[in-house]
Amino acid sequence: MTFKSFNPPERTLMGPGPSDVSPRVLSALSRPTIGHLDPLFVNMMDEVKSLLQYAFQTKNEFTIALSAPGSAGMEACFVNLVEAGDKVIVCRNGVFGDRMIQNVTRIGAEAVVVDSPWGRAVETDKVEAALIAHPDAKFLAFVHAETSTGASSDAKTLCKLAQAHDCLTIVDAVTSLGGSELRVDEWGIDAIYSGTQKCMSCVPGISPISFSPKAVEVVRNRKTQIQSWFLDQTLVMSYWSGEGKRSYHHTAPVNSLYALHEALVMLHDEGLENSWARHRAQHEKLAKGLKELGFEFIVPEEERLAQLNSVHIPDGVDDAKVREYLLENYNLEIGAGLGAFAGKAWRIGIMGYTARSENVALCLAALKDALNQ
Amino acid sequence: MTFKSFNPPERTLMGPGPSDVSPRVLSALSRPTIGHLDPLFVNMMDEVKSLLQYAFQTKNEFTIALSAPGSAGMEACFVNLVEAGDKVIVCRNGVFGDRMIQNVTRIGAEAVVVDSPWGRAVETDKVEAALIAHPDAKFLAFVHAETSTGASSDAKTLCKLAQAHDCLTIVDAVTSLGGSELRVDEWGIDAIYSGTQKCMSCVPGISPISFSPKAVEVVRNRKTQIQSWFLDQTLVMSYWSGEGKRSYHHTAPVNSLYALHEALVMLHDEGLENSWARHRAQHEKLAKGLKELGFEFIVPEEERLAQLNSVHIPDGVDDAKVREYLLENYNLEIGAGLGAFAGKAWRIGIMGYTARSENVALCLAALKDALNQ
Repeated sequence: MTFKSFNPPERTLMGPGPSDVSPRVLSALSRPTIGHLDPLFVNMMDEVKSLLQYAFQTKNEFTIALSAPGSAGMEACFVNLVEAGDKVIVCRNGVFGDRMIQNVTRIGAEAVVVDSPWGRAVETDKVEAALIAHPDAKFLAFVHAETSTGASSDAKTLCKLAQAHDCLTIVDAVTSLGGSELRVDEWGIDAIYSGTQKCMSCVPGISPISFSPKAVEVVRNRKTQIQSWFLDQTLVMSYWSGEGKRSYHHTAPVNSLYALHEALVMLHDEGLENSWARHRAQHEKLAKGLKELGFEFIVPEEERLAQLNSVHIPDGVDDAKVREYLLENYNLEIGAGLGAFAGKAWRIGIMGYTARSENVALCLAALKDALNQ
Repeated sequence: MTFKSFNPPERTLMGPGPSDVSPRVLSALSRPTIGHLDPLFVNMMDEVKSLLQYAFQTKNEFTIALSAPGSAGMEACFVNLVEAGDKVIVCRNGVFGDRMIQNVTRIGAEAVVVDSPWGRAVETDKVEAALIAHPDAKFLAFVHAETSTGASSDAKTLCKLAQAHDCLTIVDAVTSLGGSELRVDEWGIDAIYSGTQKCMSCVPGISPISFSPKAVEVVRNRKTQIQSWFLDQTLVMSYWSGEGKRSYHHTAPVNSLYALHEALVMLHDEGLENSWARHRAQHEKLAKGLKELGFEFIVPEEERLAQLNSVHIPDGVDDAKVREYLLENYNLEIGAGLGAFAGKAWRIGIMGYTARSENVALCLAALKDALNQ
């Protein structure tokens, strides 16, 4: 057998992630690898931490980039905070709420599931009823931006409800961080995780996470050992700590962290609120164009994410064939439906570096062509 | 606060990893990101799988690149194979054997620890005695190449012993893969994990793993659920499977896998046995030079790894000061001691792309200069 170097084409990534990565970030990614305990690298990690605090809008001391994808970030939040026997209210309105439930039950904890329809925001009145019905619940877990449906939930209100009922919040911000309003401290989120491959405009593989001081207290006062060694954040805290000697835990993904640093510098330069506004503005152009092409959105306007647009596939249109056509003729990737929406919906992402006028224009023109084939 | 792009210097990495990454691999790393379900990417993943089978010398169908560092690879092996109540014989002759024990106990399984001195190979007679004393043990776990000490253990004999006592083997090959003789099928290893940042000459962050058909059977016939969702390999198998539809599990670290693909193509081009021989040849030059400088090796010659050389720090020499001098004056990183060897030893790595004459020459000249300061 012979093997050759792999040379991928230049795609425009308008699916649910990964999204386009800017040349600046790709260039940072390929800078020379240095040691993960090199003083220069350690300084860079301090900057990554500060920049993540900015992106999350938090002063949480425990704000780091986990060396694994968003689903490991999710698991890190659950296995560190939740113990066997604990009761967790989990909101499910898509694939990722369902994954949260699996995380809870694998710990041996109890998940109280609050179901809302796919394609809709989490219903806050149902959550309030669950909080009242389960005064012994310790955590409320929900997805801020459901990547499987394109629905945005009211994180601010959900956090307020949790606080009123003495519950800590665990929030999935994989698709929201950098793309829509998110204020960890102001809203009082206790544990939050995200991914780098959505609105951060960075390569996939890293999960930014942040724990409030209250969450860190819960981790420190556990009665049982954390079931995962790799995700045990008590072992990682000293590696990421700004003070004193960094103790070795695992070899950090040096080059991916270069890329994340660069992506965060770009976000900081643009300004977080400007980034939110850019996603919204591109969404409006896209939504207008999609409507003109006859598409119907799955999510009602007021619950719609700017960065992820799910639309019904028109009757008589072949899902796979159109996506293949776009890929082959325009190097354009849009996303298939997931879970209940498989074969029935497309997910059009305008996340991070993808959220630019040229991409929205390309997508609308290419879709028009594809539908006329 | 203002933040600038991070521009690392060009170091020569002669510590315990990460090692130098070749320009070819760095260039592959920064190619345009495409979707993780893109047919072209899926083809590339098939090649990564074939190339990993070559590197591991195995026909194991379940041979993949885990989307997280080697310590997650370790945990993946333990949490998938071992259930609460199982008995695991764990060999400890350094930091990583100790980490294996922590993995076993966090599952609620029982670790029977066989201790061998730090800086020595695992003592096979002690292991045999433990296998005889514990006929109910299901697994034998050991580290092939101890990164904390530079000792190489006799994996072939240990596997033979395990088979004679009906135990499956779990083997840490983080530092051995690509750098020293390793034959998964011939030796009968059941579960093995490695890292990309050592003798693979690739960036850190990915863990190649391989399970024998017997190990896959054990995973499929578990009585209890795997405690980790992220590391549950039954969910990942279908994503990496060559047949039919790939089901979504998590977003693969696309660019890191480009890099691994390129590193594996380079290994395949060189030839695995040539790579082993190159490490050995560079080791001999390095060992000769270190002896001339008055250094004493920690590990006896016949148990020594070629790719990781630990030497005693001479009396009166300031550990941190010398390493700092090398870094500042020569952009050269060597490794500090770990665990029991902290402050007492240096670890000089010649792994993967680092294992070249120019680096050995630089290291010896720079050390000579540093010791004369």
